[in-house]
Amino acid sequence: MDTSTASAGAPAAAPGALSRNASQPLAQQLAQRFAARIQQRLLLPGARLPSVRDCARHHGVSPYTVVAAYDQLLAQGLLEARKKRGFFVRETRPLPSRAPALVESAPAPLPPPVDASALIRGMFQADARRSPGLGTLPAEWLDLGLLQSTLRRLAAQADDALLSGYGEPLGDERLRRALSRRLLDIAIQAGPDQIMSTVGATHGLDLITRAFLEPGDAVLVDDPGWAIEYARLSQAGMRLLPVPRGAQGPDLPVMRRLIEEHRPRMYVTVSVLHNPTGATLGLAHAHQVLQLAHEHDLLIVEDDTYALFAPNHAPRLAALDQLRRTIYVSGFSKMLSPAWRVGFVAASPDRMARLTELKLLASLTTSPLMDRAVALCLEQGLLRKHAERIAARLEAARQRCVRLAEAAGCRFVATPAGLFGWVDVGVDTERLAPVMMDQGWLIAPGILFSPTRQPGTLMRINFATSQDAKFWQMLERARETLKR
Amino acid sequence: MDTSTASAGAPAAAPGALSRNASQPLAQQLAQRFAARIQQRLLLPGARLPSVRDCARHHGVSPYTVVAAYDQLLAQGLLEARKKRGFFVRETRPLPSRAPALVESAPAPLPPPVDASALIRGMFQADARRSPGLGTLPAEWLDLGLLQSTLRRLAAQADDALLSGYGEPLGDERLRRALSRRLLDIAIQAGPDQIMSTVGATHGLDLITRAFLEPGDAVLVDDPGWAIEYARLSQAGMRLLPVPRGAQGPDLPVMRRLIEEHRPRMYVTVSVLHNPTGATLGLAHAHQVLQLAHEHDLLIVEDDTYALFAPNHAPRLAALDQLRRTIYVSGFSKMLSPAWRVGFVAASPDRMARLTELKLLASLTTSPLMDRAVALCLEQGLLRKHAERIAARLEAARQRCVRLAEAAGCRFVATPAGLFGWVDVGVDTERLAPVMMDQGWLIAPGILFSPTRQPGTLMRINFATSQDAKFWQMLERARETLKR
Repeated sequence: MDTSTASAGAPAAAPGALSRNASQPLAQQLAQRFAARIQQRLLLPGARLPSVRDCARHHGVSPYTVVAAYDQLLAQGLLEARKKRGFFVRETRPLPSRAPALVESAPAPLPPPVDASALIRGMFQADARRSPGLGTLPAEWLDLGLLQSTLRRLAAQADDALLSGYGEPLGDERLRRALSRRLLDIAIQAGPDQIMSTVGATHGLDLITRAFLEPGDAVLVDDPGWAIEYARLSQAGMRLLPVPRGAQGPDLPVMRRLIEEHRPRMYVTVSVLHNPTGATLGLAHAHQVLQLAHEHDLLIVEDDTYALFAPNHAPRLAALDQLRRTIYVSGFSKMLSPAWRVGFVAASPDRMARLTELKLLASLTTSPLMDRAVALCLEQGLLRKHAERIAARLEAARQRCVRLAEAAGCRFVATPAGLFGWVDVGVDTERLAPVMMDQGWLIAPGILFSPTRQPGTLMRINFATSQDAKFWQMLERARETLKR
Repeated sequence: MDTSTASAGAPAAAPGALSRNASQPLAQQLAQRFAARIQQRLLLPGARLPSVRDCARHHGVSPYTVVAAYDQLLAQGLLEARKKRGFFVRETRPLPSRAPALVESAPAPLPPPVDASALIRGMFQADARRSPGLGTLPAEWLDLGLLQSTLRRLAAQADDALLSGYGEPLGDERLRRALSRRLLDIAIQAGPDQIMSTVGATHGLDLITRAFLEPGDAVLVDDPGWAIEYARLSQAGMRLLPVPRGAQGPDLPVMRRLIEEHRPRMYVTVSVLHNPTGATLGLAHAHQVLQLAHEHDLLIVEDDTYALFAPNHAPRLAALDQLRRTIYVSGFSKMLSPAWRVGFVAASPDRMARLTELKLLASLTTSPLMDRAVALCLEQGLLRKHAERIAARLEAARQRCVRLAEAAGCRFVATPAGLFGWVDVGVDTERLAPVMMDQGWLIAPGILFSPTRQPGTLMRINFATSQDAKFWQMLERARETLKR
C-alpha cells in the first residue's frame, strides 16, 4: 500500500459507526480505531491519513473531533504531520519515555510536530519542576499562606450582599477603588468607573476584541508573541499583521507600512516584560507608537500581564496617552494566583460603557467574591510585598539560568529580564521539543510564539523553572544529536 | 422654538468640548449639559433632541455614550422617547417620588418608556422587598449560613493545586462528577467529560452562540422569553424567530412554518418553569419538538436555569434525546447564590470539544475555587435540602400572591408554578411600570419579555417578592387611573 492508495483507500478508521452514547468521547473512539489499524498494520508506516474534512464527513463528526483524534495519535507518537501535506503513519516506533538511547541514536527520528496544545495542556497540568517552558510562576513560588488566609478573611468578612448578590457588571467597587489607586502608581489615571473586572486578562482581551473589532478586520500583533492571543484573534476571524518586536519595541517602519497597506483597527501589544522576549518598550519608542496610532486612528490594547514583575516606572503606553487611544488590560494570574481568575480592563468612559454592556450580555457579572478577595490582597499591600520578594528571588534564578544556559552553548537574544528568557539553542526547537518531552522536559519552542508558525532555533524559558542543571545537560546532548 | 427647529438647531448640548480627562464619564457630562439646557428652558418641552448619530458626531463621542446620556435623562424624567420618532424634552415635570397625588391625577402623565435596563439595574441593586418584578430569589430566602460555611470549608480544604493553579478548561473535576450524578437524577446521562463549568448559565449560552452560530443565522426563541437572551442574540447579529409559547410548549405549526421559511440553525428554550410564564413543556410536546428538530437538523439549546425549583421528573428535552440534538445549560444563581457565578453546559463529546476550545481561548479557565465551592454544596446534599425548603416556602408564597392578585382584579394567564407568575393586569404595563416605580415598586412589564418589544397588559411577578398587600393595593389604584 503506497501513500497515494493509503490516502484514497483508507478514509475509514474501522467499520461501524462511532457511538455517541458511549462513555468515551467521539475523538477518543476515533483515535482508538486508527490506533488499532496502525498496530494491526492495516495502515502501514508512511500511509497518509484522510484529510480532516474527509474524515469528518465519513464518520459524521465535526472537524474538531477529527483534529482532537489526530492530536491524540500525534501525542502517542503513532502519527506525524508533514507541512502542507497532512498526517502520516509514523515511520519509526515512538521511543520509550526517558530512553537514554535517544540522544545517541542517529539519524534522529523525525519528531511529531509540536503545537500550542502541548504547552497549553502544560499550563493546566504540568509538573512545574520539569517545565522550563512554563508560562506562570510555579505553585511553590506563590504565597499559598496569603491565598489561604485571604479566603478565610473573605468567608469571615463577606456580608449578605456580597454573599448573595450578582455584584455590579463593572465588578466589585472595593476592587475597582484599589485598582484605581494601583494604576496611579504606574502613572495611569482611571477612576473606579473606568475599570472593569474580568475572568483573568484573557477575558478582558476577548471582550475588547468583541466590542471593537469585526470579523475580517486587520490587527497588528507583536512578533514574537503569545500563541493563545494569536489563536483567539484568528478564531474570531481577524487578520493578523505581525510587527517584528525589537529591544525597544515594535519595528516602526514595518508597522507604518502595514498600517498604510492594511488599515488595521487595532494593535495588541505587551509593552512591559514582553512575552516571550522579556523586553520593555523604550520611552521614545512609546511616544512614536502613539503618534503613529494617532495619525492612523488606531486603537492600542496594552496587555500588561507582567505588570507586577516590573518596576512602576516602566513606561506604559496608557500612562503616556492616559487611555485616549489605549485600553489597558492586566491581571493577577501570574503573581497572585491563576485560580482566582481575576483580571481587569481600564478604558475611557465611552469604551467602558460598550465593554460593560458586552460583559453584561455575555455573563451578567463575574464573581464579586473573587473580586473582593483580590481587593483584600491589594488594600493591605500584601500583594506588593509578595511581588517584591518574588522580584528578588527571580533575580537570583535569572542569574543562575543565564549561567547554565550559556554554559550549555545557548545564547540570549534579548537582555534577560522578568519571568522569561528568549534563548537561541542553535537547532530547530520544534524538533527539539518532542525529544525533550520524551525525556520528561516541557519546553516552549519558538514556533509557539510566531504568528505565522515559523519554526526556528529559539525557545522561551521560565527563569523560575529552568534552574535544574540536568535540564541544560540534557538539552546540550539532544542538541548535538539533532545537529548531526 | 418648534420641534423641527429644535431638531435642526439644537445638536449641541452646550458649547465647548467634553473633557475626556474629567473624573466624570463622558455620558454623564453630556447628560448634565442637556439637563442644564432643559432646566434653563433653552430646550423647551416637546423639543426633539438630535439623533444619536448626529449627537455622537457633533460631540466626537461614540453612539454608546449618547445612548447612555439619553438613558440617564430618561431615568431623570427629563426626556421621553416616542416610538420611531426619537427623543423629546418631556412635556410635564417628573413627579416627586412616592407622591400620593399621582394615582388620583388625571389624565395620567405620559410615562417615559421602560426598557430592559431598569429591570437589569434592578437585578444588581434593587431593594427586593419592593421589587415584585425581581428575577431572582431575594437574599433573605437564600441560605446565607450555607454560603458562609462553604467558603470557610473551601478555605480549610483547598489544597495547593486548587489554590494556585488554573484548574482545567472544563472546570473542577469534583464539580463535574457531582453534576454528572445530579444530571442522572433528571434522567440525563452525561459523563464528567461532557460537562463544562461556566460563569453562570448566561456564559454557557454565550459560548454556545459563539461556537455554533454565525452572524446572520436565524434562531428560534420562546415568545415570551427573557430580554437579556434576546439582547445577547441580537447583539451577536442573529435573527430572532419568535415562537409563541403555550401551556404545553412552543406552538408547533408556527414553529414548523418558521423553520421551513427561515432555516434556523438553533432553538433556544426554557423547557421547565419557563420564564416568564412558569409553564413546563408537556411530554408529548417535547417528543414532537425533537422530531421537528430531527427533520430539520436543528440544534436545541435547553436553558434549565430553574431546574432546582422543579421536580426531577419534569421532562427535559435533553433527557428525551440524551444530548444528541440538545445542549443542556443550567446554573446555581437562582437557588444557591448569584455571587458564585457558576453555571454549566452538558453536551455531546464533539460539541464539548468545540465549546472547551472556545472557553479556553476566551478566558483559559473559570475559577476552580468557585467550582469547588458549588461541588461542596452538591456533594453533601446541602443544596438539595435547601431547594426542598425553598419549594415549600414558595408554595405558600404563591398561594398568597394568587389570592392578592385576583383580589386586585388581576388574572393569571398561565397556571402559577415555580418562581414566576404571568399576570394580566388589564392595562398597558409599559405605562404602568413608571407609575409604580414613582411609588417605589419595581415591576417587570410584559414588553421586557417580548422579542419584538410589543407592549401589552401582562407582567411577570416573583412569588417570593410580591406578597405585600400594599403593592397590590397600589397596583389596583394605578390601574384605575390609567384606565380613565
